[in-house]
Amino acid sequence: MGNFKGHALPGTLFLIVGLWWAGKFSFWYATRRNKGAGRLTSRATQRRLEVIEGSVILSFSMIGMLAEQFAVGGPRLHLYDYASQHWDQLMNWQHATMYLFFGLAGAVSLTVHATEAAPLALDRMMLGIAFFTEGFLFLYHLHGRTMLDVHVHQLLLYAIFGGALTAFLEVFHRGNVLLELLRATLCLLQGSWFWQIGFVLYPPSGLAEWDQKDHNNSMFITMCYCWHFAFALLTVTVVYCTVSWVVRARLKRTPPMEMGLLKTTDKEQESEDEI
Amino acid sequence: MGNFKGHALPGTLFLIVGLWWAGKFSFWYATRRNKGAGRLTSRATQRRLEVIEGSVILSFSMIGMLAEQFAVGGPRLHLYDYASQHWDQLMNWQHATMYLFFGLAGAVSLTVHATEAAPLALDRMMLGIAFFTEGFLFLYHLHGRTMLDVHVHQLLLYAIFGGALTAFLEVFHRGNVLLELLRATLCLLQGSWFWQIGFVLYPPSGLAEWDQKDHNNSMFITMCYCWHFAFALLTVTVVYCTVSWVVRARLKRTPPMEMGLLKTTDKEQESEDEI
Amino acid sequence: MGNFKGHALPGTLFLIVGLWWAGKFSFWYATRRNKGAGRLTSRATQRRLEVIEGSVILSFSMIGMLAEQFAVGGPRLHLYDYASQHWDQLMNWQHATMYLFFGLAGAVSLTVHATEAAPLALDRMMLGIAFFTEGFLFLYHLHGRTMLDVHVHQLLLYAIFGGALTAFLEVFHRGNVLLELLRATLCLLQGSWFWQIGFVLYPPSGLAEWDQKDHNNSMFITMCYCWHFAFALLTVTVVYCTVSWVVRARLKRTPPMEMGLLKTTDKEQESEDEI
Amino acid sequence: MGNFKGHALPGTLFLIVGLWWAGKFSFWYATRRNKGAGRLTSRATQRRLEVIEGSVILSFSMIGMLAEQFAVGGPRLHLYDYASQHWDQLMNWQHATMYLFFGLAGAVSLTVHATEAAPLALDRMMLGIAFFTEGFLFLYHLHGRTMLDVHVHQLLLYAIFGGALTAFLEVFHRGNVLLELLRATLCLLQGSWFWQIGFVLYPPSGLAEWDQKDHNNSMFITMCYCWHFAFALLTVTVVYCTVSWVVRARLKRTPPMEMGLLKTTDKEQESEDEI
Repeated sequence: MGNFKGHALPGTLFLIVGLWWAGKFSFWYATRRNKGAGRLTSRATQRRLEVIEGSVILSFSMIGMLAEQFAVGGPRLHLYDYASQHWDQLMNWQHATMYLFFGLAGAVSLTVHATEAAPLALDRMMLGIAFFTEGFLFLYHLHGRTMLDVHVHQLLLYAIFGGALTAFLEVFHRGNVLLELLRATLCLLQGSWFWQIGFVLYPPSGLAEWDQKDHNNSMFITMCYCWHFAFALLTVTVVYCTVSWVVRARLKRTPPMEMGLLKTTDKEQESEDEI
Repeated sequence: MGNFKGHALPGTLFLIVGLWWAGKFSFWYATRRNKGAGRLTSRATQRRLEVIEGSVILSFSMIGMLAEQFAVGGPRLHLYDYASQHWDQLMNWQHATMYLFFGLAGAVSLTVHATEAAPLALDRMMLGIAFFTEGFLFLYHLHGRTMLDVHVHQLLLYAIFGGALTAFLEVFHRGNVLLELLRATLCLLQGSWFWQIGFVLYPPSGLAEWDQKDHNNSMFITMCYCWHFAFALLTVTVVYCTVSWVVRARLKRTPPMEMGLLKTTDKEQESEDEI
Repeated sequence: MGNFKGHALPGTLFLIVGLWWAGKFSFWYATRRNKGAGRLTSRATQRRLEVIEGSVILSFSMIGMLAEQFAVGGPRLHLYDYASQHWDQLMNWQHATMYLFFGLAGAVSLTVHATEAAPLALDRMMLGIAFFTEGFLFLYHLHGRTMLDVHVHQLLLYAIFGGALTAFLEVFHRGNVLLELLRATLCLLQGSWFWQIGFVLYPPSGLAEWDQKDHNNSMFITMCYCWHFAFALLTVTVVYCTVSWVVRARLKRTPPMEMGLLKTTDKEQESEDEI
Repeated sequence: MGNFKGHALPGTLFLIVGLWWAGKFSFWYATRRNKGAGRLTSRATQRRLEVIEGSVILSFSMIGMLAEQFAVGGPRLHLYDYASQHWDQLMNWQHATMYLFFGLAGAVSLTVHATEAAPLALDRMMLGIAFFTEGFLFLYHLHGRTMLDVHVHQLLLYAIFGGALTAFLEVFHRGNVLLELLRATLCLLQGSWFWQIGFVLYPPSGLAEWDQKDHNNSMFITMCYCWHFAFALLTVTVVYCTVSWVVRARLKRTPPMEMGLLKTTDKEQESEDEI
């Protein structure tokens, strides 16, 4: 994966997930806050949505694992080359392992919301574990690289471990919209930073190479990371405001038909996260 | 900003903010504790105060950013000098980035208290993020400096990250006066330590230079930091006692006119932080 | 203990404990969730089980301590060899110290559940302390070893300190099934990793030696650790599902005889952890 | 303070405080648990006790500060020797600073319990700050010492920062007997470890010198630290059991005279920590 595409691909995935989370949690928060907004969504719809999200994450992780293994130059499940006494394509195996844990998180989320078998908070814990494992593998991934290469990946760790910590906190503070949006922000940050890493380490033809040992580059990159963070915060804010505005606009247009009838239904329809 | 003024200016700002916070939170705590003190302030006044605070922080941050960019010797929005292939005035850009996040915190605080759009605790989370980003930039700011220079800035990080942690804790324990006053204390500590850094690294003419490599100086500076902390604690205590005394004195002088009438109003006037 | 057996033995013990915990906590969670499942177990049975668990841990720890001291080549309570001015068998003493703290945890668990003398959460705190001490001793255990040796033991520390942190969190969140199963998972991880360490450092005859200085081995081992973690998660999931299924199957077969009679008894039989 | 006495003195103080805390918190827990035990102590007595404890800590800290300054060889408030351009007796100044923060903690505890001016939890926060500052000064205290000297002081930091963390947790979980006894344990550990440091670095005449660079000594010392911890745990257990036994024995001997009369008083007499 030591090329531009290898960083742009996960970057794009994390950007999409971050945007999706920002929208989803903003919408649920808006329906919880606005009385009568319950009719825009029901608990059953929410669960169905979670199940779909889980399935999508699971499928993408499996595709990712298969791609890492069987794409051109992949190890094709060979782990050790006995001839040359060398591990085979360790990088691909590591990336496949990262996908494995995200796949587990997807499967768990699917199970938790499709059945009654497991406690609700398990989806957040497994997501936290998936983020933690990703960071853990990156942490021991950087031996012998150039200074700038190490630095940009270390910065990535802040977003990854930050996401893991946020997910773990959600185990105890489920339904806290601030934590949910912070997670979305950190996911966006991770996504856009993957793109940045691609541009720094494998500049597309036409762009100048970065001097990997210049300390000023390292200083600039640190600051650049903060800008990405500010940008992610801004994106989540825009999504949040749009969603809130749309929900309120819709509620005005479609007045509740029969309040008495809705009263009992409303209660039932409230987000399961609120419990 | 590598001069005395460049440290005295932020130092003064943090000192003012620290004093303001110590006074504000002491006053609110006093009005919450003393029954009938609600008439000294109302919820609407509190919100107006928060909005003003947010605006002031926002304006100062914007002035700070403009000053960093357009003051004599600033980069004037030029980021990269293509002629000499060198980043332009990275220091100024970094300081502008710090101001940016404090500006975001100010804007968020303003929005949270002026409208109903965002959850209440968002102002503390954004403040925590602003402090964290400040510390994060300082952390990667120290490459290649002399021992004492690194050491005084590392000590500063304790106050900054301490402030960030306190603000994050307030997301979950809002209205806890101890956390609020601890934040004020750490802000004062940061302010007075900026002054100390100025005196140590750029001693005003007339004062002796500090030997940057003497380990005894480093030992003394560590102890000196503790004294600044003790001094900040003392300042907050004095402010707290004064405010408490004034509130109680005023309550005695102006007895409630009609208790029955106030009863319902009181309840409404209670601090929103208590909820 | 620098041999294969010396790592396989504690590995096996931790595997057994991890499996036992996974089963125990799954069962209790299942009985708490399924109404009427109280008749499958009673509070008295639970306490008796805890007392037995405490006694078994205590006995095994004492056996371990005696084995470390009096097995062939052990120090036999000699701590310092005055003749050669050298500490005697420090390794054995260190392992005995680890056993000592697990013994204390067992004794405390026994006392807490057999008598009313101590607060309930003490068993988790003491367990956390035992894990912490184990990790603490390993942390200062690694001086002057080869790179791979240090690395595999450092990875072990994640499982150990993770277990300690989980146990400490349970002091405040007792009865949270996610924390309990996470602890079981980390215990299994520790157990299977001990076996892995044995295979890496002391490959049984017939297997190739590992190159202790090859960085690729270190990269592989990190990934391998994640696989052990995934395997431990899978094991706990299987145990959890089996136990849940068995509990539900049994409840169907043996319908409650007299609901009215059971009602009051049920309440009494609920897990003490729920309080 | 680089001598045996300089470590035995604080060690003894911490041992006394640890024992006192173990007794105090065990007694309060016993009176809270045993119904009717309220008559053995009243809320007023508890407050008086806390005030006395605060005063004693305050006085000892002031004596400590004066001793550090004016004892033979002390700096007598001279901070800088302009003649030789050297800081004067930095060690004594550092120790005086440590005493200063414990003095502040004592003064705060006195104020909190003697008046109604400050929030209750402030005493724990200030105690946490005092421990933190002690650890903070030790952390930057170790430059250029021998390996064993650095190591024994680093081990001390675990007890100090552990105590600080426990005290901070008590801000949010006040009255949790486990945290209170853990604090007592860590205080005892600190006390006995100070004695150990004295014996290791300044062995009294007649005892052999320790080889400061032998790694085996360092390994032994780590293990020895765990034994001190086990010993501290044992001591607190013994104190706890004795106090519990005495309280129950006394309650049996002096049966409540008039239950009806006590009922209302009891409620009032309950520990303020419980609120």
